[in-house]
Amino acid sequence: MSSPELMTSRSPRVRSARKLARRASRRSERLFLVEGPHAVREALAFKSSAGEGCVVEVFATHDAESRHADLCEAVRGARTAWHAVAPEALAGLAQTVRPQGVVAVCRFVDVPLDDVIAQRPSLVVVCADVRDPGNAGAVIRCADAVGADAVVLAGASVDPYNGKTVRATVGSLFHLPVVSGQPVDEAVTCLRDGGLTVLAADGDGTLTLDALDDAALARPTAWLFGNEARGLPAEHAALADSVVRVPIYGRAESLNLATAAAVCLYATARVQRQRRSDR
Amino acid sequence: MSSPELMTSRSPRVRSARKLARRASRRSERLFLVEGPHAVREALAFKSSAGEGCVVEVFATHDAESRHADLCEAVRGARTAWHAVAPEALAGLAQTVRPQGVVAVCRFVDVPLDDVIAQRPSLVVVCADVRDPGNAGAVIRCADAVGADAVVLAGASVDPYNGKTVRATVGSLFHLPVVSGQPVDEAVTCLRDGGLTVLAADGDGTLTLDALDDAALARPTAWLFGNEARGLPAEHAALADSVVRVPIYGRAESLNLATAAAVCLYATARVQRQRRSDR
Repeated sequence: MSSPELMTSRSPRVRSARKLARRASRRSERLFLVEGPHAVREALAFKSSAGEGCVVEVFATHDAESRHADLCEAVRGARTAWHAVAPEALAGLAQTVRPQGVVAVCRFVDVPLDDVIAQRPSLVVVCADVRDPGNAGAVIRCADAVGADAVVLAGASVDPYNGKTVRATVGSLFHLPVVSGQPVDEAVTCLRDGGLTVLAADGDGTLTLDALDDAALARPTAWLFGNEARGLPAEHAALADSVVRVPIYGRAESLNLATAAAVCLYATARVQRQRRSDR
Repeated sequence: MSSPELMTSRSPRVRSARKLARRASRRSERLFLVEGPHAVREALAFKSSAGEGCVVEVFATHDAESRHADLCEAVRGARTAWHAVAPEALAGLAQTVRPQGVVAVCRFVDVPLDDVIAQRPSLVVVCADVRDPGNAGAVIRCADAVGADAVVLAGASVDPYNGKTVRATVGSLFHLPVVSGQPVDEAVTCLRDGGLTVLAADGDGTLTLDALDDAALARPTAWLFGNEARGLPAEHAALADSVVRVPIYGRAESLNLATAAAVCLYATARVQRQRRSDR
């Protein structure tokens, strides 16, 4: 139901939503902010394994409501609150320079790693201590693009609910299971015990990606990617079955994390899909 | 030669270098700033086709000088000025939150497209109206990683000398020829006339990357990538020999520009290198 009056930045609901820009508040409430009509649409389409949605309430300017009438209708159809807010109140909730007039409060969507493993995944992406929200978001988006079964943000990796991460996933946060907060060694051990081959991507790897044959990539695989600046520490690389490097044909010292992940994930997904269709 | 006194933020050289943070000043001076010891080392190793270097002068704190004595020696060995500056003066030149104490003023390194074509390139990357400096930088870094022959930042693409672009290239700006400022249609026509097959990457492409056979990728190829938000407009896609999409196996609507470029460029470079080594 829409509120009869326009909420301002001092309205209690707006004030408590605004607090979700801080990680500590997100954690204690297990709620986060989703910005822009596209991402809010994807959030609205989300269903947990228990069949539950994640959108708690939506704040929008009158202007955005008239531009996205379908979204407003869908939100109300889902019996979710749609609050009309003043433009300055919306700007206070938004974290972009040019807000698009719509911000949703959503419940956390991450799942336990055990639930992922119970589904017998064939392709899982593990980020170990990945700190940059844009990188983590791009990896989640790419994992979604290749049809991966889950992304694990392990160790000291960035919060998946950080506004920049959410935006960089361009809706993919709501498309595939994301696991957050597990120590790297624990996560890798669980995945290996679950029958996945763990391939660590690292510029110092002994094997090149091109040298991996199709049989190797066709196995259920967890790719492990390290921090964008420091790479994978030896103790994490040691947890993997193989340490693989993306070949560098030119003079660059290394690749950006998201681009390296794209090359590894596409190589794997391509082989796995071919095998599946050959069966 | 090092200056005998510590320069402050009011020193004329520091003031004129600081102006290079603005595109208009960079353009009129044909000079730009390079930040951090790694990037300055790469700049120092750069040689134009006429055998000329690009570093004009280097500003560094005493602290950075003692941490990077080898760099200081190399700069002086190249008869390039090394200026000792006060930390606040360095902070004013740097564009990062935690500056690493070294900033160089460099001459523009871009080259005319004709020079690139005269070298009979086998792999060229064209960015058409790519606006995000991080994306453009990641594409230049990836082009360097695959051993591409050049990157063309065409049309309304971001300035390659924007501080964020320079940082995102992680030194690759100095590793391969970069062309800047040419209209998209002109650049594509020149490359086609130069014997390259033009493949446009677009989510609406009729061909998938997987469907391109090795013979197609082995030909001299220019990949054309569009704006990160809007993609390639029809008039640019129409300039290409084929419009190719990176397959999406999952639910993501599209890929981030740099990850899509990584997948296309690695697929091409791999085939081209295999063919060369088979000869």
